[in-house]
Amino acid sequence: MTEQKATNVTWHDHKVSKAERFKLNGHKGAVLWFTGLSACGKSTIANTVDHLLHSMGKHSYVLDGDNIRMGLNKNLGFSAEDRAENIRRIGEVAKLFAEAGNFTLTAFISPYRADRDKVRAILEPGQFIEILVDASLETCEKRDPKGLYKKARAGEIKGFTGIDDPYEAPEKPELVLDSNSKGIDELAQEVIQYLESKGFFTA
Amino acid sequence: MTEQKATNVTWHDHKVSKAERFKLNGHKGAVLWFTGLSACGKSTIANTVDHLLHSMGKHSYVLDGDNIRMGLNKNLGFSAEDRAENIRRIGEVAKLFAEAGNFTLTAFISPYRADRDKVRAILEPGQFIEILVDASLETCEKRDPKGLYKKARAGEIKGFTGIDDPYEAPEKPELVLDSNSKGIDELAQEVIQYLESKGFFTA
Repeated sequence: MTEQKATNVTWHDHKVSKAERFKLNGHKGAVLWFTGLSACGKSTIANTVDHLLHSMGKHSYVLDGDNIRMGLNKNLGFSAEDRAENIRRIGEVAKLFAEAGNFTLTAFISPYRADRDKVRAILEPGQFIEILVDASLETCEKRDPKGLYKKARAGEIKGFTGIDDPYEAPEKPELVLDSNSKGIDELAQEVIQYLESKGFFTA
Repeated sequence: MTEQKATNVTWHDHKVSKAERFKLNGHKGAVLWFTGLSACGKSTIANTVDHLLHSMGKHSYVLDGDNIRMGLNKNLGFSAEDRAENIRRIGEVAKLFAEAGNFTLTAFISPYRADRDKVRAILEPGQFIEILVDASLETCEKRDPKGLYKKARAGEIKGFTGIDDPYEAPEKPELVLDSNSKGIDELAQEVIQYLESKGFFTA
């Protein structure tokens, strides 16, 4: 093969389109953005939905504290600037995963409306599904699995969402999950039903 | 459902394992890290491999300048610190994509050995496939599709790899593609054959 030909080929990319990726998977990609207070159930619900989707043969992946704060965002702290950058990076990665054809589930408190709206803005209409995991502060504080609320009340943790830092609930979330009175499995099914009803399970 | 039960369920995550994700896809995930001079053919080869994998029903995705520098890494410049952070973030995202079961193809010059070795270190053994796209400076400069070499030679771009900034070739890359004398399609097939021979096409 002559060098000329190789050079020619070089400038003609044939990229796989998003539609082709969706078709291979048999479903669309989207970002399922779970938001809510610490201990509201975000991560557990997201992982349960992930498990259900996987068992249905759908392609999904959870971005949560376990794989983000220890990796991609390990150089970020908890200043206002770093919190915004934390959510921005997660949004960008979630977008890539969705474009690759995955249901991308994110489970972060993401307390500020402006940060979440910026993520919505970088995605195509309909691809950002904001899910409020609604549990009262009382409920979350009673659960307090890691003792964080106790520490925040004692002043050992500063800027804790719901205690001395605000949680700005979504104004028009695509879905609200009542985590005060319903169990994980029931809430996870509500998410699956939402995806089904909106046609996400067809490419 | 009582609150007690919901609380119980909350602390028992059942996460989908990497092995289960590989099984759904019918193949393993891995990072295919293409490295080489500007205009060596990295991006074109990566996209061609992506296209081939997709047509074989494999799950793959390309991380390149198009989707990274405009998104996740748009707040990074070209200082030594920012270049290292650029590669670090790409490595972390590539790792997530590989864990989700994808062949993740990255196409960045990534000139420094230390930066690439850090990415290798965060991946499991065998999951980081370093691919040197080997084209001489002369070949790349002759191609110069974006006129970047010309600008670098004229001093209009500073710190350009191969001109006034070093390219540190991998010492033990998993694969070397001879982009001086072979065409894109032939080189892309070499990558596919490598994956096949190493058992990546079975879960």
